Amino acid sequence: MPGKTNIYSNAYGKGGKGIVNMLKDAGIEISDQGKAILSFSHDMSYITPVKPVAVAFPKNKEQVATILRICNKNRMKVTAVGGGSSLTGSSIPLKGGIAISMERLNRIIEINIEDGYARAEPNVTIEELNRKLERYGYFYPPDPASAHMATIGGSISTNAGGLKALMYGSTKHWVLDTELALASGEIIRTGSSTLKLSRGYDLTALVCGSEGTLGIVTQATLKIAKKPESSGIMISYFSSIKDLAETVGELKKRGMPLIMAEFMDHASLLEFTHARKQMAPKYANYVLLTSVSSTGKNDAITKLCVKIIKKHKPVKHEYIRKNKEITRIYSARRELHEKMVEEAHMEGKDIVIGDVIVPPSRLAPALLEIGREIKSSGQRVALFGHIGDGNIHSNIYFTPIDKKGIKEVMKLQERIGRIALRNKGSVSAEHGIGLEKKNLLIEELKSKDSERILQLMKEIKKAFDPNGILNPGKIFDI
Amino acid sequence: MPGKTNIYSNAYGKGGKGIVNMLKDAGIEISDQGKAILSFSHDMSYITPVKPVAVAFPKNKEQVATILRICNKNRMKVTAVGGGSSLTGSSIPLKGGIAISMERLNRIIEINIEDGYARAEPNVTIEELNRKLERYGYFYPPDPASAHMATIGGSISTNAGGLKALMYGSTKHWVLDTELALASGEIIRTGSSTLKLSRGYDLTALVCGSEGTLGIVTQATLKIAKKPESSGIMISYFSSIKDLAETVGELKKRGMPLIMAEFMDHASLLEFTHARKQMAPKYANYVLLTSVSSTGKNDAITKLCVKIIKKHKPVKHEYIRKNKEITRIYSARRELHEKMVEEAHMEGKDIVIGDVIVPPSRLAPALLEIGREIKSSGQRVALFGHIGDGNIHSNIYFTPIDKKGIKEVMKLQERIGRIALRNKGSVSAEHGIGLEKKNLLIEELKSKDSERILQLMKEIKKAFDPNGILNPGKIFDI
Repeated sequence: MPGKTNIYSNAYGKGGKGIVNMLKDAGIEISDQGKAILSFSHDMSYITPVKPVAVAFPKNKEQVATILRICNKNRMKVTAVGGGSSLTGSSIPLKGGIAISMERLNRIIEINIEDGYARAEPNVTIEELNRKLERYGYFYPPDPASAHMATIGGSISTNAGGLKALMYGSTKHWVLDTELALASGEIIRTGSSTLKLSRGYDLTALVCGSEGTLGIVTQATLKIAKKPESSGIMISYFSSIKDLAETVGELKKRGMPLIMAEFMDHASLLEFTHARKQMAPKYANYVLLTSVSSTGKNDAITKLCVKIIKKHKPVKHEYIRKNKEITRIYSARRELHEKMVEEAHMEGKDIVIGDVIVPPSRLAPALLEIGREIKSSGQRVALFGHIGDGNIHSNIYFTPIDKKGIKEVMKLQERIGRIALRNKGSVSAEHGIGLEKKNLLIEELKSKDSERILQLMKEIKKAFDPNGILNPGKIFDI
Repeated sequence: MPGKTNIYSNAYGKGGKGIVNMLKDAGIEISDQGKAILSFSHDMSYITPVKPVAVAFPKNKEQVATILRICNKNRMKVTAVGGGSSLTGSSIPLKGGIAISMERLNRIIEINIEDGYARAEPNVTIEELNRKLERYGYFYPPDPASAHMATIGGSISTNAGGLKALMYGSTKHWVLDTELALASGEIIRTGSSTLKLSRGYDLTALVCGSEGTLGIVTQATLKIAKKPESSGIMISYFSSIKDLAETVGELKKRGMPLIMAEFMDHASLLEFTHARKQMAPKYANYVLLTSVSSTGKNDAITKLCVKIIKKHKPVKHEYIRKNKEITRIYSARRELHEKMVEEAHMEGKDIVIGDVIVPPSRLAPALLEIGREIKSSGQRVALFGHIGDGNIHSNIYFTPIDKKGIKEVMKLQERIGRIALRNKGSVSAEHGIGLEKKNLLIEELKSKDSERILQLMKEIKKAFDPNGILNPGKIFDI
């Protein structure tokens, strides 16, 4: 397509202006003011921002479709942006083009308890949806730590996991249907409001994790669940990661109904205890937070969990039952990464957060190997993660102005990815590939003799978006 | 492709023989004897059998890949066959070609309790896998009634649901990874053994429900779960379907942890009571079987469930706690369709089983409408289904030699599908589309302004199988 580059580069100059005017004429609110452009040039990753030509603010799905139709016709790239909490660069408008802010598609349309679903527009945050569902004793289980800013649309686009994925699985298990605006401007319904569906290729599942490269979600029907009863949170401090990992292994083997099993290393623990306003005990190098689904405060399951944990000799074990304290602990865990980033910023630093996953039995060796790698790199790193499902987040500190330092960070990030691969794991559990992990994705597929998958993905992309206008350059290069 | 038809028709004659010889030369066991050909010409649907040219019996994935490579090169169609329990014609070799019997790929490769998965070859039956998992107190939740003959591969290919889908969801929620032989003969791993993955387009989810049209699964890694404690089975007889549906509605609204909620109408009930060797009470026109996850025989949840059910005034309510009796009840429910078919055969009749689904709140109106439709059709029909998730199976009796009668059955089946669509449902919950529902699928997509999906599916198919050799004519025409 020799003409394509031409049109594309036009998009930055006069052609771009022309398209912006076309969108204005079609009644779309659009801004090419510096402030709007700047705030849509980045996400929460460390990746270099790219300015869009303009930012469109569609009011409804019809306007989303109009934007896509006009942009597709004129080969203008588009990137839909939700809460902007991506950690991999997935909502950065890499090739410029139009950033489509989804902020006005923010209505909860229907809560249907009997049929077990909620229907919402993409920019509703997960926290907002859960606030509404709480009145009914229900909740939407996918639970990224950033639930206060992560939107339904964004979490679908990265197949987000989160704190409760251990019990409830990832986003893809909870999306029944999406209303999807295709690059052509057509709008389809990928699924159904029913609790099961076997109707050929599952396009709803395909949309989950596709990072906005196949279409723009304008509405989603989400399966919801009754809130489980919980007996509180257990906080167990360990001196060694091996003891902690083995505790989790035994809790799982014995089939304890774990809602959550989170771990933090010493650096993360300091941050956590600070937020929680309570000191950790001496020799506490690691902490494990667990929560189990149970029917009462003193039931058999809770007791058995405590017994299993204590068997592995934690330095200290607390059992928190007060709601206020439980809320504080959850908040402290949720805000961990954000607080770290805030503090890093104050020191003129920033953080790259990794997201590898291994089978739980590989946690202890993988964590030990990661520890050695970090030590030999000389980098400052804080580890935490959803240990129950084998998901480790490494927070690597770096100084943005130090180009050589950044390269070192990237190298460490890659080495941690390779440790995950060597331990039968994957380079991305719940943050997606975005811009950050395109090379690691290729490495992973190669290591599994499955490089062909890349080509299959590209052909699927082409079926949905033949002109390649949707969030270009994410997941893979086309 | 003008040459294609030519090669294709050759496949039946001399060309076909040539390919069979090529496969023999490659060390593949292959049979073109009448008996093998006959037994691979049909599945458990009522659809007219089609004979394959020959039946191949690969011993391992390498041989599957060899068959595919040779057939792809020579444009020979192939259809992989597992347990042969498809109810929609999905394993009938519609265009002849080679039937690939998966029967020798029947090993359970690994049970890994700590990492929460089982890895098995496709021809392991679900029952066999569960027998093995039971020793550990674990199970594989997707649970089609035909679990004794349904294989891992087949249940992936139709995204099977079953009795426990109410609590555990469909097959797609439990497949972590497949080893997939592509039409080209390349073998890829679509996922990972990890409990979460966000690595671009989810090809594992795409394989689930694709009815063998995208590749042949040669191994699958399946998430497993700890067996829940259950307080037994409740059998509640009702005189009206409305009372029964409302009971289920209230159990769900109040968040009871239902593992199973099955209903049967009077005709199914007769079969069930016969198998169970216990009469139903007078005025019992419908029966509801429920099972809840609970921690003890007399716990609060079980008590609350009984209270809710009794509020809706069942004609009779039994609470079965004896394991032997529970097993008998499960078997009676599982074998319902098979027994009906057996008896129908003895009368020179056969059964078409439908598989529609509606949101639970639409069950009562949909069932009433279906009842009226059946009455006015004058057909003999027995209804049962997984009422907890809104899934209704209608068993329509017909006489195979009566061509006009068959047409009437098809019409009724279509009208029931349309009732589901009018009630915000779908024409296929868990049996797939196969050959049977291609028209209904088109109707459903049209009714949702989503006909474009058909084209997207065809393009995805083309990416995986450019020569269209894999199980052609299923789900859609190409």
